[in-house]
Amino acid sequence: MPVKLYGRSIVEGGPVGDDGGTFRAFNPSEGREFGPEFHEATPAVVARALDSAARAFQQYRAKSAEEVAGFLEAIARNVEALGDELLETARAETALPSERLKGERGRTTAQLKMFAGVVREGSWVEATIDRAEPERKPVPKPDLRRMLIPFGPVAVFGASNFPLAFSVAGGDTASALAAGNTVVVKAHPAHPGTSELVARAVVAAAEEAGMPSGVFSLVQGQSPEVSLAVVEHPRTKAVGFTGSLRAGRALFDAAARRPEPIPVYAEMGSVNPVFVLPGALRERGAEFAEGLKQSVTLGTGQFCTNPGLVVGVQGEAFGKFLDKTDELFAAAPPGTMLNAGIRRGYEEGVERLQRIVKRKAGGAAADASRTQAAACVFSTDAATFLDKRELGEEVFGPSTLVVGCQSVEELRRVAEGLEGALTATIHGTPEDLREYAWLVRVLEQKAGRLVFNGFPTGVEVCAAMQHGGPYPATTDARTTSVGTAAIKRFARPVCYQNFPQEALPPELRDANPRRLWRLVDNRWTKD
Amino acid sequence: MPVKLYGRSIVEGGPVGDDGGTFRAFNPSEGREFGPEFHEATPAVVARALDSAARAFQQYRAKSAEEVAGFLEAIARNVEALGDELLETARAETALPSERLKGERGRTTAQLKMFAGVVREGSWVEATIDRAEPERKPVPKPDLRRMLIPFGPVAVFGASNFPLAFSVAGGDTASALAAGNTVVVKAHPAHPGTSELVARAVVAAAEEAGMPSGVFSLVQGQSPEVSLAVVEHPRTKAVGFTGSLRAGRALFDAAARRPEPIPVYAEMGSVNPVFVLPGALRERGAEFAEGLKQSVTLGTGQFCTNPGLVVGVQGEAFGKFLDKTDELFAAAPPGTMLNAGIRRGYEEGVERLQRIVKRKAGGAAADASRTQAAACVFSTDAATFLDKRELGEEVFGPSTLVVGCQSVEELRRVAEGLEGALTATIHGTPEDLREYAWLVRVLEQKAGRLVFNGFPTGVEVCAAMQHGGPYPATTDARTTSVGTAAIKRFARPVCYQNFPQEALPPELRDANPRRLWRLVDNRWTKD
Repeated sequence: MPVKLYGRSIVEGGPVGDDGGTFRAFNPSEGREFGPEFHEATPAVVARALDSAARAFQQYRAKSAEEVAGFLEAIARNVEALGDELLETARAETALPSERLKGERGRTTAQLKMFAGVVREGSWVEATIDRAEPERKPVPKPDLRRMLIPFGPVAVFGASNFPLAFSVAGGDTASALAAGNTVVVKAHPAHPGTSELVARAVVAAAEEAGMPSGVFSLVQGQSPEVSLAVVEHPRTKAVGFTGSLRAGRALFDAAARRPEPIPVYAEMGSVNPVFVLPGALRERGAEFAEGLKQSVTLGTGQFCTNPGLVVGVQGEAFGKFLDKTDELFAAAPPGTMLNAGIRRGYEEGVERLQRIVKRKAGGAAADASRTQAAACVFSTDAATFLDKRELGEEVFGPSTLVVGCQSVEELRRVAEGLEGALTATIHGTPEDLREYAWLVRVLEQKAGRLVFNGFPTGVEVCAAMQHGGPYPATTDARTTSVGTAAIKRFARPVCYQNFPQEALPPELRDANPRRLWRLVDNRWTKD
Repeated sequence: MPVKLYGRSIVEGGPVGDDGGTFRAFNPSEGREFGPEFHEATPAVVARALDSAARAFQQYRAKSAEEVAGFLEAIARNVEALGDELLETARAETALPSERLKGERGRTTAQLKMFAGVVREGSWVEATIDRAEPERKPVPKPDLRRMLIPFGPVAVFGASNFPLAFSVAGGDTASALAAGNTVVVKAHPAHPGTSELVARAVVAAAEEAGMPSGVFSLVQGQSPEVSLAVVEHPRTKAVGFTGSLRAGRALFDAAARRPEPIPVYAEMGSVNPVFVLPGALRERGAEFAEGLKQSVTLGTGQFCTNPGLVVGVQGEAFGKFLDKTDELFAAAPPGTMLNAGIRRGYEEGVERLQRIVKRKAGGAAADASRTQAAACVFSTDAATFLDKRELGEEVFGPSTLVVGCQSVEELRRVAEGLEGALTATIHGTPEDLREYAWLVRVLEQKAGRLVFNGFPTGVEVCAAMQHGGPYPATTDARTTSVGTAAIKRFARPVCYQNFPQEALPPELRDANPRRLWRLVDNRWTKD
């Protein structure tokens, strides 16, 4: 029997607030609203969520690593246990195919379990110990021990394009909870039912794991005011966000204007340039065109790492690649987008390109009433691209712009003029890579992840992943929102000077009871 | 023969710009201007500095670790070689005693050498490797390798209270250069001659070490416009600052408003609360009073870690401590402050306290014409302190406020109401510490460093140091401006996916030619 949705925010374990404005979920592929009314969180609801998160924080951060890990694993179990109802609700709200959603659910639970493992292992706290030298002249050296501790309540904004893996129990929530922070999630209004189901799974896990009820809350809302209220609340200590540049920048600005500014980790997507070098074009231009088309149209182009720009040097092989690309995109079926707003944004982006760039090959006709979009590829020359800054801006959806350069020198200028990106890709032979070694140096300055002979879509969740990049890809290029290192975003160092052993956190005691990797007197050791 | 000062900014190895407004150095202990006129950097000079820093960056970051380390060591040698002229210029400009300046010079050169060591050892780049699993199902795992790389030009603002160790070749410059960034220093206008001498030592070191001339520039200026121009220049990629809350916040705001926001590491001082617990008061109240007075008056109170607030529970021992403190402060001689502006700020702060708090014991009369300030101690009850927020704000100089609480519960409220601080200190017996374990939990949320039975002045330069803290102590509590970890502020991660070995930076190659500590397939190893 399906769960009856509250249609409200969830604070301290239960539904609250039925006095805000309302909105309903929208089925993009059917073009109609459905399900219950959802009430916007009022300022009072937002305040209750943050106040309870602040109270719960003191209890939550006193929990052992084992208890926190158990909590994360309970969330994973409960999300899994939502079964088909979760998948069906998410499919109705996002039009993402069931298989994709199943995969995303697997990724979500895997992330929760991965962070449980990170917490259990424990070395993420970067324990650093410099022992006292009481005999040192002219002054004795004190005993100094430093480790990372959590911030306090973290606000997480659900992303529209990952209703599970970057939403209520997604990577931001998992890493913030793993670091010992309490969390208030602002649900994305495009999947309020999915958000509520997952939130209730988290709430149940908190209860099972004996966590304080304020450890997690969900606030619903469609209007920017709710988002701003969450960021501006004095109890909020950090923000995680995945979404558009406009929304991310608005939250960043609000956080920077606060009496006490707080960090905002906003991942705002990017054009993800792909450089295709002469050897690769000669050896496998058609294969590259096929891979490009697949990467651009995957998930109807709704990935932060979607390759929106392809750059190469003009010539015979480049011309052939372009023809092949046109052919492939012309044959591409339309795809259903996540919601009407995203589709509108895509159409506007395509029109913007079309005003400047004449050459375009588009896929089959798209049905706007079913939120469909047609894949398309544009092409232009480097002179035009360099002249029109707006050609370098992201168009979120299944389109890409191919830029042909007249010379290597022009290609260099295109590379040097790029904005910050999550990824930058090079296709080439080993010889190409040697010849274009300078291009790697340029792209290192532009992106967080450099891909060789692959496509940027598909973001591995592991220790070495860097999902981030210079502005406007993110508001904090020093961090990643994917992989184990994401936990570092939600912690800060504290140093204990001359504390007796028993007053130190276990992570910093001489005995190293948790067998952490630590830097002791400048030497890495587990002893 | 003394060096003839240029009195100008230094860009690309030489003096530039004589068309800006002028200002002169001021000898605080003699109350008069001296030395040559210094020209303010015009916007054109600032642009030249940043443009040359951006050009030099591509060459500088290609230098080997050994070359960068050699450059840092050459700076240390050249600063040392400035000899007495540097010490005398600094003494005239800051009124800091020669012994203190000698110590500070030693710290400055030691920091440069320390970072040379960090660069040579190399593990600071946090190399992380996840090797490919081509057979993995359903999709192969790519090869992913991540490390830290530099940002680009870093702007460093010299501090008035550390004319050497936190100025031109101080900790921010040393750590930014060590990470591979080029640097533009905005000299503090209170010690322009000292700044020029050190800048010329850095420029000479760059030449000796074969570095591009844009690797380091110095801009002079007294007006806020020069500082803002440096932060707002599009080539600037990060900012290091030590100084007042007002100036630091202004730079932070300017950086956040930029089209491309950049990180600002502003260390803006704090009240550095000291909690004195009952056992410590009983056992050694007089000794504590003596230590407190010494810490408060050290360097005429001009340290970011100056203890400006003392909190205890009222009672007989507390009363005796208060009397002893009054006696000690009454006997304290006046001290010369760094400059007239700082003295004025101190007088205003003291007057602000005096309007609210009646009880005050002050030191000997101070001579304003010689920029002197009298040490003083205020005392009040917790009810007044909790009622008047302004009592919790930093007064930069040799004063402290003692707050007597009627109960442990009141002490808890004082602790919980504190603003962010660089440090928080507890004096107590081991029994006190057990009883007040909750106080440690509260103070962890308020400060970057917790000191037990010591005083916060005196900041050890080592791996475990944390010199930073929640706002308003700094604009980025995730970082430290002292110790080896300071280098992490000026770098960001980049991940290489499926790159051939020879195209990877040496730090990420299988062979590990530099023998770094690396996280390989989730295991720390030097192999």
